[in-house]
Amino acid sequence: MSDRQISRFPLAPVESLPDDLREYVENVAERTGFMPNVFLTLVHRPDELRAFIGMHDALMMKDTPALSKADREMIVVATSAENDCVYCVVAHGAVLRIRRKDPLIADQVATNYRKADLTSRERAMLDFAVKVATDSASVSNADFERLSGEGFTEEDIWDIGSIAALFAYSNRMANFASMMPNEQFYSMGR
Amino acid sequence: MSDRQISRFPLAPVESLPDDLREYVENVAERTGFMPNVFLTLVHRPDELRAFIGMHDALMMKDTPALSKADREMIVVATSAENDCVYCVVAHGAVLRIRRKDPLIADQVATNYRKADLTSRERAMLDFAVKVATDSASVSNADFERLSGEGFTEEDIWDIGSIAALFAYSNRMANFASMMPNEQFYSMGR
Amino acid sequence: MSDRQISRFPLAPVESLPDDLREYVENVAERTGFMPNVFLTLVHRPDELRAFIGMHDALMMKDTPALSKADREMIVVATSAENDCVYCVVAHGAVLRIRRKDPLIADQVATNYRKADLTSRERAMLDFAVKVATDSASVSNADFERLSGEGFTEEDIWDIGSIAALFAYSNRMANFASMMPNEQFYSMGR
Amino acid sequence: MSDRQISRFPLAPVESLPDDLREYVENVAERTGFMPNVFLTLVHRPDELRAFIGMHDALMMKDTPALSKADREMIVVATSAENDCVYCVVAHGAVLRIRRKDPLIADQVATNYRKADLTSRERAMLDFAVKVATDSASVSNADFERLSGEGFTEEDIWDIGSIAALFAYSNRMANFASMMPNEQFYSMGR
Amino acid sequence: MSDRQISRFPLAPVESLPDDLREYVENVAERTGFMPNVFLTLVHRPDELRAFIGMHDALMMKDTPALSKADREMIVVATSAENDCVYCVVAHGAVLRIRRKDPLIADQVATNYRKADLTSRERAMLDFAVKVATDSASVSNADFERLSGEGFTEEDIWDIGSIAALFAYSNRMANFASMMPNEQFYSMGR
Amino acid sequence: MSDRQISRFPLAPVESLPDDLREYVENVAERTGFMPNVFLTLVHRPDELRAFIGMHDALMMKDTPALSKADREMIVVATSAENDCVYCVVAHGAVLRIRRKDPLIADQVATNYRKADLTSRERAMLDFAVKVATDSASVSNADFERLSGEGFTEEDIWDIGSIAALFAYSNRMANFASMMPNEQFYSMGR
Repeated sequence: MSDRQISRFPLAPVESLPDDLREYVENVAERTGFMPNVFLTLVHRPDELRAFIGMHDALMMKDTPALSKADREMIVVATSAENDCVYCVVAHGAVLRIRRKDPLIADQVATNYRKADLTSRERAMLDFAVKVATDSASVSNADFERLSGEGFTEEDIWDIGSIAALFAYSNRMANFASMMPNEQFYSMGR
Repeated sequence: MSDRQISRFPLAPVESLPDDLREYVENVAERTGFMPNVFLTLVHRPDELRAFIGMHDALMMKDTPALSKADREMIVVATSAENDCVYCVVAHGAVLRIRRKDPLIADQVATNYRKADLTSRERAMLDFAVKVATDSASVSNADFERLSGEGFTEEDIWDIGSIAALFAYSNRMANFASMMPNEQFYSMGR
Repeated sequence: MSDRQISRFPLAPVESLPDDLREYVENVAERTGFMPNVFLTLVHRPDELRAFIGMHDALMMKDTPALSKADREMIVVATSAENDCVYCVVAHGAVLRIRRKDPLIADQVATNYRKADLTSRERAMLDFAVKVATDSASVSNADFERLSGEGFTEEDIWDIGSIAALFAYSNRMANFASMMPNEQFYSMGR
Repeated sequence: MSDRQISRFPLAPVESLPDDLREYVENVAERTGFMPNVFLTLVHRPDELRAFIGMHDALMMKDTPALSKADREMIVVATSAENDCVYCVVAHGAVLRIRRKDPLIADQVATNYRKADLTSRERAMLDFAVKVATDSASVSNADFERLSGEGFTEEDIWDIGSIAALFAYSNRMANFASMMPNEQFYSMGR
Repeated sequence: MSDRQISRFPLAPVESLPDDLREYVENVAERTGFMPNVFLTLVHRPDELRAFIGMHDALMMKDTPALSKADREMIVVATSAENDCVYCVVAHGAVLRIRRKDPLIADQVATNYRKADLTSRERAMLDFAVKVATDSASVSNADFERLSGEGFTEEDIWDIGSIAALFAYSNRMANFASMMPNEQFYSMGR
Repeated sequence: MSDRQISRFPLAPVESLPDDLREYVENVAERTGFMPNVFLTLVHRPDELRAFIGMHDALMMKDTPALSKADREMIVVATSAENDCVYCVVAHGAVLRIRRKDPLIADQVATNYRKADLTSRERAMLDFAVKVATDSASVSNADFERLSGEGFTEEDIWDIGSIAALFAYSNRMANFASMMPNEQFYSMGR
């Protein structure tokens, strides 16, 4: 895969990163088995890379009783599909399959989460996330009440909305920069 | 203004912040004359506050020959208006009036930037930013060529798209959390 | 401000108007302190100017127990914002600030009336007006029942819908003719 | 046809109108062979009826070399169809068939004017009118240049846009008030 | 009417059809009094013509206690109007007028079925059909329950949805091929 | 997988089919290795199953110099993704991977064909197909000229539009009936 198949902007070498960031992305690459392209596309902007990693890990790398890591990945896939983002749907689809141990869920959620085999709690979570992604100006008390009724805490609701908001950022970055996912993501977890 | 008029989520005291963040927001408050509500709404999540500040300053606090700080604020106002975000339109409208030394521009750009009194370069910049904000999946080579033709460098184009992407995040946060701007913003720079 | 900054169509002199219209617009100019540009843009079409004034005053210059003049201006700002009309949002935003004695309301309603600090009655009024403005074909009995439940009479409901309809006309006129508001409107009532 | 099949608002008797308006609508009824329901629905608001008639006749009752009365009716049918307005499509469809001496044109224009058998001039006229009706905020110089290139004068362009704007008003009135056309209109001119 | 006024694709002679299809379309032409253009446009593709006739007759040529042939035509007119299909609105509008013995219904349903004079059962039927036509991905249990509540059987619901789906096909064929209806259809049943 | 996980309508046994249809679907099942659920969902309506198979095979089972079987599957995946149809995206995505011998293409085209690695010819083909799927009323001469310029014959253009139209039918059927794809499709050809 040539550079321009990863991003329409020039790629900088990982070695040019400040030590903390270089170590961070090399650790991820070691655990994953390859360096996710999203890191490569941001190397030329270390401050933006650091902020992205900070926001991502604060929202995605935790489990609460009502909002697992798999749930968080499902939010990413559902909202990224609304934004037609190839990078995020394919890469986070892979993580979702693995975290949920379900080879079918990512394609269902990416195509139409309303037809996926979900619980009432999961459906409420995705309805809220997709509303934040596509029509946040209309979010109202009724939306919050439905989530509370499904057992989500106020902090969980913040997380659901914030994950949808974070990937509103990521989807737009990946789309305008034509970032493409690593080939490995397509078949992981199937 | 009571807490719940600032955000529908509970506010934590600024004193609870790690020192670096506390000093940062207190410095902004001193320069501005008041503490912008956006900081207050994020105090309960210091990692997210740090990431937001990092991304914001990397993209908004620089000038390039073709993309001034005022231009960057204009991108925020135009894209935030598309997302009906009261906080961002009012607060960044104030900053735009001040940076551009123009008391009329913010209301024009917030209502319909196509009718504002703009140069061809500015119009191209906002057309691209609004496309990233509302239909990033359709961004194409022709969009990049128009910006290059107006004198924007590849790094400027990255900035224009990234600012639109960052405020896709901020607008959704402010909308679902019902963040409201400080009263002072409404009249600054008029 | 040159003529072409007021309208993309040629302006005729106020002196060319029939006496009744000339006196009317000069009276408004005297009370307001300046001649609103909307009148200037219509001088070349006296019959249309007369009809516009007739319709405007019949709907906007009255108070009923449930629908004040300030309420009527709020309808104009909310629906004109949906249509991205710079003239109507800025000029009627000024009148709204003055009639309601509230310097913040116009910017809130113009950006997202759902987040403005409104009563249940005001929210119902604007939901109906915006539905008439953007999707009148779907207005149904349930919409009328909600307004009745908030204390609006049948004649009030006619007024709410008619104001939204009248500014559907005005917004389109101002948009295709690129009418721009007088500079004074931007800061009135702040 | 009972009153409530004409409008969801109460009808006032024609006799209650001021003399000038009563004579006007009775003259129309005599020429047409029946009293068009639109007048009946406005009798309870004589000032609004007078303004509507004034605006309507100023824009619809004239011929210019490039914009005939039939052309004007075609604009009404095309834009009213975009707004799903039964009264205006049926009543002005009848007038269009008669003025153009063409029994097929109204149904074609009402369903999809892009597939109707039109000249390049007529197609440009309707493209502009429909843009004013549905997306006036985006009207640009290129739209004006296309009309000039087809032989329309600046005054004609004002008329095309104004007719679309006037029926933006009428369509919303008819839709929210559930005005229904007289049965005679359905078959006139076929 | 020349060939190119019937379809933008070349027409093959009816004589070139296999015997069963030729007899079928000639029988229809004899009963109707003329050969409907839709058959002419498909002669060059006999397998597609046979499939279309098979699907059409399976869904349109039956009566059930809750879903008459006139109801089925009303579904065609309402959904074809959403797709702006001149052929289907005009041709099936004619059949609807005849089957329902109502000269006004087709124009009402084609312009805005929500304003047509319909029963609660008919309104539910068209709301479902239009949802299948325009937003099938969102069809949910609540939509089925409303239809059951109006007395439709499970087989009827299949038919309503399938008719909307079949004309999703037909509308797109007629639109991209610019198929135009026979002149006779415009005035039949008025 | 239980019946209700295949369709929300009751399934009839394959044995109940007329001999020609039973043999047809059993042959497909033998070649594929399993019986595709789409057939099962249509067994209770043999005439509709026969028409669907007839139309499908007429359009999908042929190769022309400019329009291969893989191209035809790519049209199905791109247009079905616009309609959020889980069955068609997953099942035809599998066929596309196999026919094109490309394990990555289906996920790219299903998420955003504009970002997929396609030739100019393929991109023109999908732009046309998606326009027929989503806005067929606006198809114009310019759309045909672009396809001709890419080497498609008039018969190829008919096929591209017709495939988009056929799956407008299939997508709506699968969506309202909640048809779900066989598990095998998800991993075929990866």
